[in-house]
Amino acid sequence: MKKVNVLKPVLVSNQQRAKENRRFFDKIHSLVINIIASPGAGKTSFIKKIVEHFKNRYSILVIEGDIKGQIDSQAISMLNVDVIQINTATECHLDAFMTAQVIPQIEKEYDLVLVENVGNLVCPAEFEIGEDYKLAILSTPEGDDKPIKYPLVFHLAKVVVINKTDLIPHLDFNIPQAKKRIKMENPGSMIYEVSAKTGSGFEALYEHIEKEINAKQEDKD
Amino acid sequence: MKKVNVLKPVLVSNQQRAKENRRFFDKIHSLVINIIASPGAGKTSFIKKIVEHFKNRYSILVIEGDIKGQIDSQAISMLNVDVIQINTATECHLDAFMTAQVIPQIEKEYDLVLVENVGNLVCPAEFEIGEDYKLAILSTPEGDDKPIKYPLVFHLAKVVVINKTDLIPHLDFNIPQAKKRIKMENPGSMIYEVSAKTGSGFEALYEHIEKEINAKQEDKD
Repeated sequence: MKKVNVLKPVLVSNQQRAKENRRFFDKIHSLVINIIASPGAGKTSFIKKIVEHFKNRYSILVIEGDIKGQIDSQAISMLNVDVIQINTATECHLDAFMTAQVIPQIEKEYDLVLVENVGNLVCPAEFEIGEDYKLAILSTPEGDDKPIKYPLVFHLAKVVVINKTDLIPHLDFNIPQAKKRIKMENPGSMIYEVSAKTGSGFEALYEHIEKEINAKQEDKD
Repeated sequence: MKKVNVLKPVLVSNQQRAKENRRFFDKIHSLVINIIASPGAGKTSFIKKIVEHFKNRYSILVIEGDIKGQIDSQAISMLNVDVIQINTATECHLDAFMTAQVIPQIEKEYDLVLVENVGNLVCPAEFEIGEDYKLAILSTPEGDDKPIKYPLVFHLAKVVVINKTDLIPHLDFNIPQAKKRIKMENPGSMIYEVSAKTGSGFEALYEHIEKEINAKQEDKD
């Protein structure tokens, strides 16, 4: 028996456009990470940590997706890296077409492109943008049951970052339980525990990202 | 000059269906509150507090919106109130049509209907379901900038609950700043500060809801 997976037409055309974006980013040897999380999970603070660590060695572009406003873009610009803002107006996620509109503004080869998606644990997971992979952030105050309740993003994310570990003493968040639930959705996902506030846990993640940047650079040769 | 506000067709038909739902709930004198928040902001814990306070005096129905699973429904059923689960599968919000599917299962007059929408600060705001009003929950770990970044829900919510006030000593959340930003989106909104964990701040909110339930009951006579 043959099985046909029917996708909504909007997702099919999005996927095609995402492939074209991906070809562009591959051509300029950029590692593109699509960062997805709930509002307030700490996406911007996380990006700031990554930027601060790598900015003197690698060229970095941050693409900021927000419904409205430029608060995060302004915060990241202060770190002296290139930032492009996408305001989605009523849309609750970035998609490949919005991302494609950014491409004509990219005038150099970036080693690392960090995309901060709109704060939403549901819809951004459905729309590829041309990324190498999705990185989901789960913050501890949200609770360790979120991988069960919002499974798609945890199913698709290659890397999951458990953020705000500094708050655990004040919460009922169970790290082994959370990890087990994440692995149930995606046994291959790599999980890192960090606090973007205190900086704890970032070393292993820096190493992970550095390896991936270097792998992309090797393609160049 | 005349101004035409163009709505997406899906929103127009949703609005029509929401009006019909509203007529049904009005006929059975139910106060219907549509509860909207990010994942992990504390919607279920909030509902449990309200249910525990009112269940011996009023008849209560909880409608649970989740993408998948029944964790919250099960937790609320333990309190011995009626619960109806809606699983949205891929949809990131409840809409009037999903809510309409619940109506044939409603076999008595409920004084209070609490609807827990899917955890999402963006899309649920766009879709009326037939509610009396929207109640938004903003949890302190999300940050006090959320009303600026996700304005629609704060623009539309008649009541905003700032939850997890017990965590404030460990965060950079500024209550007056948050309130100012909520009021910028909706000067008429009523703001309550609570901790669903410790129970602090609920008295004023109970009073608010009780007045509204009584107003609905007066229509009956």
